[in-house]
Amino acid sequence: VKVAVAGAAGYVGGELLRLLLGHPAVEVVQATSDRHAGQPIHAAHPNLRRLTSLRFSPHEELGKADALFLARPHGVTLRAFDDDVGRAPLIVDLSADFRLHDQAAFSRHYGGPHPRPEVAARFVPGLPELYRERLGGAAWISVPGCMATAAILALHPLVAEELIAGDVLVDARTGSSGAGAEATRGSHHAERSGALRIYEPTDHRHGPEIAQACGIGVRMTVTAVDAVRGVQVVIHARPTRALRERDLWDVYRRRYGREPFIRLVGQRSGLYRYPEPKVLAGSNFCDIGFAVDPGGGRVVLISALDNLVKGGAGSAVQSFNVAIGADETAALTFPGLHPI
Amino acid sequence: VKVAVAGAAGYVGGELLRLLLGHPAVEVVQATSDRHAGQPIHAAHPNLRRLTSLRFSPHEELGKADALFLARPHGVTLRAFDDDVGRAPLIVDLSADFRLHDQAAFSRHYGGPHPRPEVAARFVPGLPELYRERLGGAAWISVPGCMATAAILALHPLVAEELIAGDVLVDARTGSSGAGAEATRGSHHAERSGALRIYEPTDHRHGPEIAQACGIGVRMTVTAVDAVRGVQVVIHARPTRALRERDLWDVYRRRYGREPFIRLVGQRSGLYRYPEPKVLAGSNFCDIGFAVDPGGGRVVLISALDNLVKGGAGSAVQSFNVAIGADETAALTFPGLHPI
Amino acid sequence: VKVAVAGAAGYVGGELLRLLLGHPAVEVVQATSDRHAGQPIHAAHPNLRRLTSLRFSPHEELGKADALFLARPHGVTLRAFDDDVGRAPLIVDLSADFRLHDQAAFSRHYGGPHPRPEVAARFVPGLPELYRERLGGAAWISVPGCMATAAILALHPLVAEELIAGDVLVDARTGSSGAGAEATRGSHHAERSGALRIYEPTDHRHGPEIAQACGIGVRMTVTAVDAVRGVQVVIHARPTRALRERDLWDVYRRRYGREPFIRLVGQRSGLYRYPEPKVLAGSNFCDIGFAVDPGGGRVVLISALDNLVKGGAGSAVQSFNVAIGADETAALTFPGLHPI
Amino acid sequence: VKVAVAGAAGYVGGELLRLLLGHPAVEVVQATSDRHAGQPIHAAHPNLRRLTSLRFSPHEELGKADALFLARPHGVTLRAFDDDVGRAPLIVDLSADFRLHDQAAFSRHYGGPHPRPEVAARFVPGLPELYRERLGGAAWISVPGCMATAAILALHPLVAEELIAGDVLVDARTGSSGAGAEATRGSHHAERSGALRIYEPTDHRHGPEIAQACGIGVRMTVTAVDAVRGVQVVIHARPTRALRERDLWDVYRRRYGREPFIRLVGQRSGLYRYPEPKVLAGSNFCDIGFAVDPGGGRVVLISALDNLVKGGAGSAVQSFNVAIGADETAALTFPGLHPI
Repeated sequence: VKVAVAGAAGYVGGELLRLLLGHPAVEVVQATSDRHAGQPIHAAHPNLRRLTSLRFSPHEELGKADALFLARPHGVTLRAFDDDVGRAPLIVDLSADFRLHDQAAFSRHYGGPHPRPEVAARFVPGLPELYRERLGGAAWISVPGCMATAAILALHPLVAEELIAGDVLVDARTGSSGAGAEATRGSHHAERSGALRIYEPTDHRHGPEIAQACGIGVRMTVTAVDAVRGVQVVIHARPTRALRERDLWDVYRRRYGREPFIRLVGQRSGLYRYPEPKVLAGSNFCDIGFAVDPGGGRVVLISALDNLVKGGAGSAVQSFNVAIGADETAALTFPGLHPI
Repeated sequence: VKVAVAGAAGYVGGELLRLLLGHPAVEVVQATSDRHAGQPIHAAHPNLRRLTSLRFSPHEELGKADALFLARPHGVTLRAFDDDVGRAPLIVDLSADFRLHDQAAFSRHYGGPHPRPEVAARFVPGLPELYRERLGGAAWISVPGCMATAAILALHPLVAEELIAGDVLVDARTGSSGAGAEATRGSHHAERSGALRIYEPTDHRHGPEIAQACGIGVRMTVTAVDAVRGVQVVIHARPTRALRERDLWDVYRRRYGREPFIRLVGQRSGLYRYPEPKVLAGSNFCDIGFAVDPGGGRVVLISALDNLVKGGAGSAVQSFNVAIGADETAALTFPGLHPI
Repeated sequence: VKVAVAGAAGYVGGELLRLLLGHPAVEVVQATSDRHAGQPIHAAHPNLRRLTSLRFSPHEELGKADALFLARPHGVTLRAFDDDVGRAPLIVDLSADFRLHDQAAFSRHYGGPHPRPEVAARFVPGLPELYRERLGGAAWISVPGCMATAAILALHPLVAEELIAGDVLVDARTGSSGAGAEATRGSHHAERSGALRIYEPTDHRHGPEIAQACGIGVRMTVTAVDAVRGVQVVIHARPTRALRERDLWDVYRRRYGREPFIRLVGQRSGLYRYPEPKVLAGSNFCDIGFAVDPGGGRVVLISALDNLVKGGAGSAVQSFNVAIGADETAALTFPGLHPI
Repeated sequence: VKVAVAGAAGYVGGELLRLLLGHPAVEVVQATSDRHAGQPIHAAHPNLRRLTSLRFSPHEELGKADALFLARPHGVTLRAFDDDVGRAPLIVDLSADFRLHDQAAFSRHYGGPHPRPEVAARFVPGLPELYRERLGGAAWISVPGCMATAAILALHPLVAEELIAGDVLVDARTGSSGAGAEATRGSHHAERSGALRIYEPTDHRHGPEIAQACGIGVRMTVTAVDAVRGVQVVIHARPTRALRERDLWDVYRRRYGREPFIRLVGQRSGLYRYPEPKVLAGSNFCDIGFAVDPGGGRVVLISALDNLVKGGAGSAVQSFNVAIGADETAALTFPGLHPI
């Protein structure tokens, strides 16, 4: 399968290249970046030095391929969509442009109404754990946001079984790579290092994505922590009936027991009793754990993933694998490192 | 005033020495540590090199002083209390041994019932913002836990004015120094670096301290983050009536407008719109900020402090200043650093 | 090939398991750890959760295998060697016990003369770039120290062509994982975080390893930096004749042009102009770069690697691949991550 | 003394404000920043919230004062000097514009010949340990670079007693704040975090400053490490005669025994046997230590300081104190923190 990656010099683009260059069924035929046009791939991604002789092309030279991964900024993707859509029969988009179907939420978070809601509606969410059947043979795939993916995967089993109700509180913690490769005052090392920066105390644009996938109300607080990679989500929810931890194990095992990239984490002892992004760097796992309040009135769900892999490029490749009928785990078996 | 510091080789002990050595009204006459007995102070606290010629004494050689600061481990303080009580007319304890008056909560978190509840009851909490009058002339002072201090200072004004009710959710994030100077598997750098370790998802022993001071129900989740110093607390609460941000400003300004060590943080722009421990290292400030959920159904309170200063040695010295009738800010004016 | 890993709960042991579990020609039949005996692998290595159903065995239950990797502490390996030697026809040792042949150097750094120099002499160094031929079919392999590997790979081409002479100065910077999984006061997060700890200003035990492999005098300074993984070595040497950068390129390309795990790094611009361990976590690459002093009197060599992979488990597996005649790169193709 | 700070929104400017606002003999009358003109000081320096009611003025509104601290970028200071010189009888400059008297070195490192060498020649270096007498009553003071200060203070005693000769090798490690408050691709957190970036392997512009002050040849390598504050310098030098450690102690004690801000660090045991910037954040100390190569052929000198304090604002205030005849330690007694 010949694939092209647009926006390949960004951080998600780099992870797409890393994964796709190691994919046994794929040939990467093009990688676009206007800024790095003409340069070798390792000019933007030093880890890929010597792994490919490809060079970045300007986006306007993007040619035909069997599949096109779009890792370009929000808004840019949408504006170029009519041009790009004809370039490949399979498009996997990683921007936010086609994620939300709720017009009010889109307007509130992306600066105005969506100009092409009918196009957005045709995208299948790039989350195989929820949409595997629809992804088989899909033409257009839109990968959810990193924090949304972590929250949806933790929440959905309980919502589906009507074990929680009412609004949930999603407390997300995120590393700096989620904001992309552009240097800003906020990403300046002297300011960002050691930060516990609450940049969205009551409303974050990934909230409506979670609400859309789960059908519940979501309140969301996001804190930028001192890490490069990784997202951890802690969700506080009220159960509809008294739950014990064993009930939760039952639910999650039933739902996720055969999922290749979801691991249930729950240990009585040791340092890694709950999910942590620290040991997930580079991996496509989403680790999920939980605890029940002694009084029974609250369930705490915890999930963690690498924002650039399971929260981005990895989910994209996994969805692509499903769409083309390949082994779903192809190119995605790196387990993460410990210690790191 | 001649003061002695017991448990002076620990991290809180080191901060007590740093502050008290710079206190214009104080002479530090003794610093005890069994492990470092006979060694110069800088053997444990390299920052204090050349600032004092004092050496650590073994605890059994602790003599008389005008005031005694106890920075020894939980349990040890209690067991030695009958011996230590006669050594100074003013005792400031920083352990957890005399904080909690709720026997059930103490039992649950400290391994059994308190052997001397009548002694604990005589301690005045070392939190001048709430107990300044009782601290004037107090003989025994017990400084609250670091996360409890942060949460109480943020919550109390709203509770006092009956603006919030029901259980509150306290989400605390803490650096590694809060666990003390003893090396453990959990504090091993390769494991602790980069951690987002949720070590108490539903119940932490600082919770009952907050409940005791505020008279409300508290659910508490604690995450160990990759920092040495600092505590940040994010509190989610339900208001009893619709609140706007301006209402909160009114409440907090009325309550804390003259407090020397509480700063209200709320900016429309910039990187430091909400409180962060990053800029508080070494300072005695507790920074407090807040946000109101757009729907009005939730108030988010944020507070930050240096766990070893305002969350420990600083509150102790501030309480001591009040108790002896000195300038409350003596030795406590270092403002913190930026960037750091 | 059935392999066993002894000392499998340590950090190098964990990396051996990660690599060998993904090796197409290998079956891991046993992993020993006295401390974790009976526990699942992920009790020590959370990244390997669900990748294997193996459990740790006590070392005394170590059985027969086709190859045995020893990742036990210095000294322990030597004492148990007579017992372990019969368990497999191929032994790959990662301790320091069989690295040094210079008795004086061994005595100085390891607390006394080597009790079995004739055994040590039979080990082939696990560094395929220098000893590939001897490794083919070798029975006993001893992998060099992480900093030694980085320095030897950078120095050897210039020494071999007699382009440098006299003592060289090796300035090594190392992360915390190099000191192993045991918690110590020196590895306590509050002390180790942010450290620039010069623990060996003039003499480090990896120095004699470098001298032995290169045949030159070595002065070595080691600084512990705030990282978990990674070693960077900066070497200052005097050339025997005026060298230009292009001369160095010629030498290194000639020597390493076909090496699968050595990359020459030299860019005129960009952030990664010289080798850095940051982008090498998990990878088996050793990146090498250099600069020539404007005056011509000094050559600066820079190399970087992941101490647990190319500086440990990766070189071990690479050497094992050579020894058994497998594809040298089997299990070792993970390229590292960016950003991280 | 009425003082103004120009370039007050930068990192050195912020530290000048922190120190001068706490100076008992000083009133800060103006703080200029074109970018932040009109904003309160804490818009740029969150640690100074509530400590001053001052606001930033545009530089063109800079008025008269008794002393003017210039913390503006290299080049800008020089271009505005004729305008600024009349604004105060005492000028303390922290840029590089008046540091170097060697025209060739200035040209090589700052993009061309110095346009006003006769002005530069009139500046007294802001390093009281070497130039205390000349600083008394000085009108124009130029503070050396942070790495230069650390190196000069370590080297000068040995050079002055002719105990070392020939070129020395200065290996400097620096945090990110040394590059200033402007966000760049190089300071982007995802790239800068975890870096060991060798950005000057053979020649750094602080080298000629060291050579100028010490009268010896200097080769300098600089590595950017993952820290915000702090500089550590490791110097390798050849002694002119066999030296023992005790000889070095004698030299440094004789020279620095009465210096208020230099501490000699040398312990047989413990974690802080050699100088580290970690425990110096916010302090005006320069810690100096050393080791002698077993063979006697090399001396290793180590010094550490906070680049924004003893390597910038602190040396400036200390020099100012000397110039106006105040207590040299005024405003500079904060000892640093441990742990941090």
